[in-house]
Amino acid sequence: MHESRDLHRRPPSAIVGPSHMRRHALPDYAALDRYVEEHMSAWTDELTQFCRFPSESTDLPALRGAAEWIAERLDRLGARVDTVELPGDPNVPPLVIGEIGDGPMTLNAVQHYDVQPAVPYELWTTPPYEPEVRDGRLYARGVTDNKGELMSRVWGVEAYLATLGRLPCRVRFLVEGEEEYGSGHLDQLLDLRPGIRKVEGALIEGGGVDLVGQPEIVGGVRGIIVVELFVKSIAYDAHSSLATVLPSAPARLIQALATFWNEDGQPAVDGLNDGVLPPTPAQVAIVDSTSTADLADRKREFGVDRFLGGMNEREAIRAMTFTPTCNVQGLWAGFTGPGAKTITPAEAHVRIDIRLVPDQDPTAILANLRAHLDRRGFEDVKFGAKAEQERAYWTTPDDPLLDAAARVSEAVFGRPAKRRLSAPGTAPMWQVCGRDTIRMTSLGGGHDDCRAHAPDENYRLDYAAKAAQVTARFLDEFAAIDG
Amino acid sequence: MHESRDLHRRPPSAIVGPSHMRRHALPDYAALDRYVEEHMSAWTDELTQFCRFPSESTDLPALRGAAEWIAERLDRLGARVDTVELPGDPNVPPLVIGEIGDGPMTLNAVQHYDVQPAVPYELWTTPPYEPEVRDGRLYARGVTDNKGELMSRVWGVEAYLATLGRLPCRVRFLVEGEEEYGSGHLDQLLDLRPGIRKVEGALIEGGGVDLVGQPEIVGGVRGIIVVELFVKSIAYDAHSSLATVLPSAPARLIQALATFWNEDGQPAVDGLNDGVLPPTPAQVAIVDSTSTADLADRKREFGVDRFLGGMNEREAIRAMTFTPTCNVQGLWAGFTGPGAKTITPAEAHVRIDIRLVPDQDPTAILANLRAHLDRRGFEDVKFGAKAEQERAYWTTPDDPLLDAAARVSEAVFGRPAKRRLSAPGTAPMWQVCGRDTIRMTSLGGGHDDCRAHAPDENYRLDYAAKAAQVTARFLDEFAAIDG
Repeated sequence: MHESRDLHRRPPSAIVGPSHMRRHALPDYAALDRYVEEHMSAWTDELTQFCRFPSESTDLPALRGAAEWIAERLDRLGARVDTVELPGDPNVPPLVIGEIGDGPMTLNAVQHYDVQPAVPYELWTTPPYEPEVRDGRLYARGVTDNKGELMSRVWGVEAYLATLGRLPCRVRFLVEGEEEYGSGHLDQLLDLRPGIRKVEGALIEGGGVDLVGQPEIVGGVRGIIVVELFVKSIAYDAHSSLATVLPSAPARLIQALATFWNEDGQPAVDGLNDGVLPPTPAQVAIVDSTSTADLADRKREFGVDRFLGGMNEREAIRAMTFTPTCNVQGLWAGFTGPGAKTITPAEAHVRIDIRLVPDQDPTAILANLRAHLDRRGFEDVKFGAKAEQERAYWTTPDDPLLDAAARVSEAVFGRPAKRRLSAPGTAPMWQVCGRDTIRMTSLGGGHDDCRAHAPDENYRLDYAAKAAQVTARFLDEFAAIDG
Repeated sequence: MHESRDLHRRPPSAIVGPSHMRRHALPDYAALDRYVEEHMSAWTDELTQFCRFPSESTDLPALRGAAEWIAERLDRLGARVDTVELPGDPNVPPLVIGEIGDGPMTLNAVQHYDVQPAVPYELWTTPPYEPEVRDGRLYARGVTDNKGELMSRVWGVEAYLATLGRLPCRVRFLVEGEEEYGSGHLDQLLDLRPGIRKVEGALIEGGGVDLVGQPEIVGGVRGIIVVELFVKSIAYDAHSSLATVLPSAPARLIQALATFWNEDGQPAVDGLNDGVLPPTPAQVAIVDSTSTADLADRKREFGVDRFLGGMNEREAIRAMTFTPTCNVQGLWAGFTGPGAKTITPAEAHVRIDIRLVPDQDPTAILANLRAHLDRRGFEDVKFGAKAEQERAYWTTPDDPLLDAAARVSEAVFGRPAKRRLSAPGTAPMWQVCGRDTIRMTSLGGGHDDCRAHAPDENYRLDYAAKAAQVTARFLDEFAAIDG
């Protein structure tokens, strides 16, 4: 935890900025850009293959299939491939490591081959694992998150090698298979390769472009807890005529959950904010410099006329950065099919996710949630066996890695980059970077309407090409960072 | 509604008791009882066939298959069969009418061939539509409710005809296909055959035997409302990182639902008790004469150490008779599969059932539920398109039909019958009997641990035989009622 504190409270005197960089002449990328354009058709075909694996967390054969596919592809790229299995646990999908290039500077590219569940299938225009191109976008589950963004990085390296020759640094792909379910074994898998975390910088899995085409550079990620809560009130489902006398599991769970939010729908769990570091002036400055334009887009996109609690857009941006969430991702009890079934269900379940900020400790927050329930007499609301837990990780906003990412993004997308302290989502950057306080940045072409995690997930192929071009340019910028 | 009022407030002077009956010598049932015993094996086979139809409300082909099967069986019994379709709506399963016997007295036997949904399949010991005999019980969805209880009536008539000859009254089977989903078209189907409701008595679909083998005679049924409520807060599922700013459909629904019960889990919906008739002294006497023994069994069966709100068993029996319920039968939102999916769901749904007592008007109670929500600012909690609605219907406790049912049950089961004002459940007796204030009773062998509506539904074959014997004897008792 102290490392994270250091990271966020680095004294101003320690700031390293553009003036500290070794500036050198950058190569001409015209041939590289042309190479990318010429290969997009073939690359789209190979991304289509990759997306045919339904590599959801519950489908081990598909996960292993996707792992083998990317291992083979990295080998074909010229990387030294090392597939790391967890000893004694063949149910854990392997970490695929692909290392290419050499020199004093190493960049860890933190990626994954697993995907979010594709349900509900009926909301997809075409089946999620039968990728299809429509209007310049490839549609499939995982096509942006993260198979497409991973492949854009591979393509960037390939284009660099083909048009500029030897890489200016070492690139190490770390491609895991449990990212969408909390990267539960990533720490153990990394520990099997000592020294693998000690590098000069890291890329998070992708990078964003907003709805008006402006690239976004983020220096961190939220942490997360995913926990299932349930009530079992009777031995088995009863005929609902007994509802007058038997305790109802759903009613009981509903009453417990109702205490989790205030009337405005904002979190009201005791101690949910424990451990939150007060934002530094530099952090607030970054957040307040963010344009509110795409928040208005979000409102239109989701068809809402106000944000929770009547927050204005400025408040919403601050909240999305600095405030923990408490979200119901799923809720189920009794008979949920069409028609009716007159039962009093024996059990009721909810799955909650809580997104954390630095320096919150997931274990402490889970304990607070338990205490919140117990204090109100809801000892009968139990936790499911396994809770997913990840810490937040933020790089200081003035890190030269972020400047480098911003410069190459601006060069390729032709628009000024927006800077963000943290992605609103989660990735296992704490596991990869936290121990050694490794600087990290985002970089890529994932657009805001890519519908990651939702039906009709898609990847704009023009942005996929730009993501490859950005990646290639970034290698030169990264190699030039001094410090 | 006034008919129901009359029914429950019949002045004491109008009571007709056993002394008003034409007593006549009853036949010797030894040959009949033997016939039943000898045929149980073949009858079990035919019940097995009947239970192979998965005639759930969503499976029209199976519903039509079951309707044809019972029509053919009634024809084979010797009944005049009339399959009534709703003109212009082939999606409505037909009402199968089978009429046998003649004379001044007609008994309507109100039955159904549809079944409750069988999910969750994994909780069944053997598949719900592959009936299997184990330890003297037949296991299948619908095997008691109502296919077995219907067939026991058919067998009783068959045994009477085979051993005693001509029936002493007319028996009219009314076998519908929408009972488990509110009998939504039964009134219209009955209206297509004018005069069909004007009879001298009616049997509800079955009859109960408690866990210690004592028969129960009920004179009425609860009414019911089944209504789906939902919230749609955003246009589509969002990445759950947006939970800080976007309204959550499940959180909103949870907060609305939390107002439906008090801290003890007892209903707190405004106006839920509107229209409840205060119990008459005769009604209270019946209820208070009920033994509390099987309430203790219920506690053990469901593994609870107290009833809702700490009710004692006497209070529980009164509540189960005189108090409306408010029950969650199903609750669903977002991702409910294994693993996790970090979304803020766009929608959240609940299906509620409310059991009514005389003289509650379902339409008025639904309006009260709506007003309850609106008064608390939950206008965004919407009702699903179609709400199932049925009124309660209770015969006065001293009706001679109930005495007749009690006598034959005691004769066959060899134990004193328990009298109940109302079944805790629902059946469409208002539709069949309400308009003309037709007396009704239960009669049969459905045991308390038959798991109707639940996994491992079963029918004790020894009680199935007794149900047939009871039915046959009842025809003579019914024919002898004077008034």
